[in-house]
Amino acid sequence: MNILSENKLVLGIDIGGTNIHSGLVTPKGRVIKEFNLKTQTFSTPNHFIAELHQLVLAYLDSHQYKLTGIGVGAPNGNYYSGSIEFAPNLPWKGSIHLSDLLNEVFKVPVKLSNDANCAAVGEFLFGNGKNCTELLVITLGTGVGSGFISNGQILLGHDGFAGELGHIIIEKNGRSCGCGRRGCLETYTSATGVVRTALELLSTSTENSMLKNKSTSEITAEFISESAEKGDTISKEILLLTADYLGLALSHAVAITSPKKIILFGGLSKSTFLREQTKIKMESYLLPIFQNKIELQPSGISGHAAILGASALVQIHKD
Amino acid sequence: MNILSENKLVLGIDIGGTNIHSGLVTPKGRVIKEFNLKTQTFSTPNHFIAELHQLVLAYLDSHQYKLTGIGVGAPNGNYYSGSIEFAPNLPWKGSIHLSDLLNEVFKVPVKLSNDANCAAVGEFLFGNGKNCTELLVITLGTGVGSGFISNGQILLGHDGFAGELGHIIIEKNGRSCGCGRRGCLETYTSATGVVRTALELLSTSTENSMLKNKSTSEITAEFISESAEKGDTISKEILLLTADYLGLALSHAVAITSPKKIILFGGLSKSTFLREQTKIKMESYLLPIFQNKIELQPSGISGHAAILGASALVQIHKD
Repeated sequence: MNILSENKLVLGIDIGGTNIHSGLVTPKGRVIKEFNLKTQTFSTPNHFIAELHQLVLAYLDSHQYKLTGIGVGAPNGNYYSGSIEFAPNLPWKGSIHLSDLLNEVFKVPVKLSNDANCAAVGEFLFGNGKNCTELLVITLGTGVGSGFISNGQILLGHDGFAGELGHIIIEKNGRSCGCGRRGCLETYTSATGVVRTALELLSTSTENSMLKNKSTSEITAEFISESAEKGDTISKEILLLTADYLGLALSHAVAITSPKKIILFGGLSKSTFLREQTKIKMESYLLPIFQNKIELQPSGISGHAAILGASALVQIHKD
Repeated sequence: MNILSENKLVLGIDIGGTNIHSGLVTPKGRVIKEFNLKTQTFSTPNHFIAELHQLVLAYLDSHQYKLTGIGVGAPNGNYYSGSIEFAPNLPWKGSIHLSDLLNEVFKVPVKLSNDANCAAVGEFLFGNGKNCTELLVITLGTGVGSGFISNGQILLGHDGFAGELGHIIIEKNGRSCGCGRRGCLETYTSATGVVRTALELLSTSTENSMLKNKSTSEITAEFISESAEKGDTISKEILLLTADYLGLALSHAVAITSPKKIILFGGLSKSTFLREQTKIKMESYLLPIFQNKIELQPSGISGHAAILGASALVQIHKD
């Protein structure tokens, strides 16, 4: 049977501590079928793969689709080794050679990387970074990740670990970080970092604020963003401080890689105020030759971003 | 006539404010003939090119060599445009399309970039970075430059200006820089930056030092390096401060590009004490996944480094 290219699908898999979201993706980036599984129900990666294989095969067979590859986004995922390396939030311990395991069962090429690199290739192929061969994507979530597209390829470095902008030390002897050091960008500009800034400012300020009289669990990055949009002074101050740290870190990244476009990805990036202020701060820290050249945009992928990003790994891969 | 590959030469040109060093280079990186000209004697680039052309042609003809390409290292040299963009120290003002001008006269492919990128490709092809496809070269001279080799190619960014590590702001509101901003790495870790640190420390310290009772013109980076090797406490303190700034900046570069090797290039890099302390500081700022993986070495090119680097542009070029 002659398989038309539209019948060729890539499986994108996004592995998190709680959920594993997978989906079959067309070459144009449309997710036509999703499979959602709970990470903790699988004591080994083999159990997970066996179940996913059954589900995918059943769907492919009944629709005469052909699977051409698998892309995986995973915490601590390494592109070169195809392994998940000691991910603290997964039930599977140690170094898991997930690419090999998937390849043995599915018999198609498998590419694996971390979430931020997946976000970067996703934006490059299907989002606001489309065709932008010099691109930087920053993920602002519980942590801060980054993926660089350079010369149309993922910037991997010699060991596959390039793109750790979230762990540059932006403040010497600053806040303690989950990585065991102090002052990482992530401790200031992640969703949790923003909440830390809020608590710090609230502890010293006498100013009235929508954040006051809230329980600490209610003071989320989302609530702070919303309050800032409504004009809350302390919330704006929090985001201004966040923008200052992020702008400085971005200026470092620009001086090194000179991207055409920077995309902010993840919950926090939805704040227009934060994006605008980050742009202003970044420009103020840039060498004149880089000023007023770089577009800073939000993600251009509305749904299934993680699945699309993972699937994009197969389409961009450089072997 | 059948030209053997050993008869094929590349012309490397290193343009500075005072001298233009050029040389004919074999594919294996041997400079077999040098031409040295004074920059200020040429009121236009065309005059310089005409003279160089005569000299090169005479030599090639008399030795039956064939010229296959020209590589140029120049201040503010842009790889994509092949131009020198508003270099303050050259007699030729504005934007000089030197690649085109050279190509019109010599009728061979011409590649042009800045000095730091030339140093990087030089080390990659002929020096201590040989075959290291993920490499970072830092030039520590009057200024601080950097060239990144990523995936075996020069990291250029969208506009050819990538690799400006010398102008990341390493100290907010720090020392004023020639670029018009404050706190650039260059103001602390260039040869002139090291002298500024010396004057700062001498102004506050009561400690005895070999630097005291010297005229300010005698306090050079070289003299400070020598004094440190002899055990002078203040000189060591100056280099420790320098190493701290450089180590932090290198840790940023590593987090973004994850090189296998970093090469320190230029006068200051000859200080073993500075190199060792920079390595210690860098390691202390690195995320654990990057620690104890990266070699930090001095340049592996003993003579003609600038000519070799410029000539290497032609051999590595990616068009």
